[in-house]
Amino acid sequence: MKSPDSVELPDASQLHQAATRLRGQIRRTPVLELDPSEVGVGARVIVKAELLQHTGSFKVRGALNTLLMHPAPPEGVVAASGGNHGAAVAWAAARVGVPARVFVPASSPRVKAERIASYGAQVIVVEGYYPEAFEASERWAAGRDVARVHAYDAPDVVAGQGTLGLETIEQVPDATTLLVSCGGGGLYAGTSLALTGRCTVVPVEPERCPSLFAAVEAGAPVPAPVGGVAADSMGASTTGRIAHSVATRAGIRPLLVSDEAILTARSFLWERCRILAEPGGATAFAALLSGVYRPADDETVVVVVSGGNTTELPESPSARA
Amino acid sequence: MKSPDSVELPDASQLHQAATRLRGQIRRTPVLELDPSEVGVGARVIVKAELLQHTGSFKVRGALNTLLMHPAPPEGVVAASGGNHGAAVAWAAARVGVPARVFVPASSPRVKAERIASYGAQVIVVEGYYPEAFEASERWAAGRDVARVHAYDAPDVVAGQGTLGLETIEQVPDATTLLVSCGGGGLYAGTSLALTGRCTVVPVEPERCPSLFAAVEAGAPVPAPVGGVAADSMGASTTGRIAHSVATRAGIRPLLVSDEAILTARSFLWERCRILAEPGGATAFAALLSGVYRPADDETVVVVVSGGNTTELPESPSARA
Repeated sequence: MKSPDSVELPDASQLHQAATRLRGQIRRTPVLELDPSEVGVGARVIVKAELLQHTGSFKVRGALNTLLMHPAPPEGVVAASGGNHGAAVAWAAARVGVPARVFVPASSPRVKAERIASYGAQVIVVEGYYPEAFEASERWAAGRDVARVHAYDAPDVVAGQGTLGLETIEQVPDATTLLVSCGGGGLYAGTSLALTGRCTVVPVEPERCPSLFAAVEAGAPVPAPVGGVAADSMGASTTGRIAHSVATRAGIRPLLVSDEAILTARSFLWERCRILAEPGGATAFAALLSGVYRPADDETVVVVVSGGNTTELPESPSARA
Repeated sequence: MKSPDSVELPDASQLHQAATRLRGQIRRTPVLELDPSEVGVGARVIVKAELLQHTGSFKVRGALNTLLMHPAPPEGVVAASGGNHGAAVAWAAARVGVPARVFVPASSPRVKAERIASYGAQVIVVEGYYPEAFEASERWAAGRDVARVHAYDAPDVVAGQGTLGLETIEQVPDATTLLVSCGGGGLYAGTSLALTGRCTVVPVEPERCPSLFAAVEAGAPVPAPVGGVAADSMGASTTGRIAHSVATRAGIRPLLVSDEAILTARSFLWERCRILAEPGGATAFAALLSGVYRPADDETVVVVVSGGNTTELPESPSARA
């Protein structure tokens, strides 16, 4: 379907088809209900532990949905990413049996490149940062018959991420609110479209990576600052056109959380729940724990912990004090 | 009920009463189905993520069941432990509103003592190892009206741990096999009694902490070696009389896994599932991943990951190679 600003959005049937397509191919990630008093609220609080997904983040949903819909040519798939998207594309390509090349900036931690390679992808390390890796991937792809998977701003990717919303509402039918972290906005857009009329989806961004917030303020996607503790997974400098369109239609303004709130949420998830999230993955929970999002007592709030690709334990509270 | 060797075992009604008593007081920990091909088996494989329980292990089930059944005197509860049992007793005491004193050996990592204190317990650090801490706790308790909670060999504790079995069979009604790690044997005994006639419960011990294995061989609980990577949580030198009685009645011989298999399982759970178990918590999974337990293709195997109280990420596979 076309939105009023003529951005292509996945419709309900595409979302349901994506869910059918992915069933049995990806993990049905579990939910964990917390004691509201632990979090200092009156509402029911349920964590959706999507970090337990293949490759440690929700990104495989969009990547695999895309590759199952559009069988890749024999030369396979190409992506540029040193992070969660790269791992997801590598995993999805292996799943459908086509080769994957992932261009990784030399600035990414070596363990991330190793992880991508562990799924069978060919990893090409490119001197510099993400833009250099992206450019190298484009040069390689030019004139070749290869598939590309956008990290967040394509309807099939958004539909794939939206299956997390459909899965959540099956697990928690009385959910009233879904808090999701928002980088490029694929997870937010997909879950919001999937749950329209059933559950309010609230995007949460780091204050230092406020791309959707900036777009809503400006009336269009615009470059926004990228920084802070969650920049590695949340640092899309410009939000997706799809996410902007969805937020505008829903009249939603993203919540912003500080780096301190993100780190505190990450510590809480580890210390109190033994859930080890990456900072971006703890961003939605930060909104609840810090009081930036204050639920009414009759809400049932599901908080997505969207990624766990970290190589560090949080500092213990006493060490930070 | 009395077993033939006159050990007091909790019966079915005590197990169901424990489940009713604990409902809403503890977390219903989630299950995660894996792709069998990931694990190299044909059977269905489901992880029961009990490490997400309050205090990071199943131990709160037995501790809280005990304190709810027998309200503690005003002087409260005393325990000696630098580990999971100490944290569980501290948490359970706070939950029922009585003071707790936990005697911690100076040999325990400081973070564990801090964790116990974070639940509101008074921590007394005792020079030496566990026996010195235990003796100090006994000296303090002598002549005082205080409650004690055994770490594994008391019917109310075993009944509490058994609620994990009842919860699992609700979540996975067609489970045929439950693999559990076995230290002092409380979790094994409780789940085995809870699932009698419904599901085979298989205890798994580290080769270097084989207390139940030694008891089955000897025909009675006997001191066994304590060592290896999982000794901090699995190192009961003598298995419980209850666990020995249950294993004997069931005709079960525990499976033994090597330290290497435990570390490989721990790495797999982290690298492939973003579940960060302590070595003891990964012991049951090690039996499956290493092939020490080989399920038939028509089995539905649930593997309990029983604890996550660790302060270290596994070394990455490349670092270990």
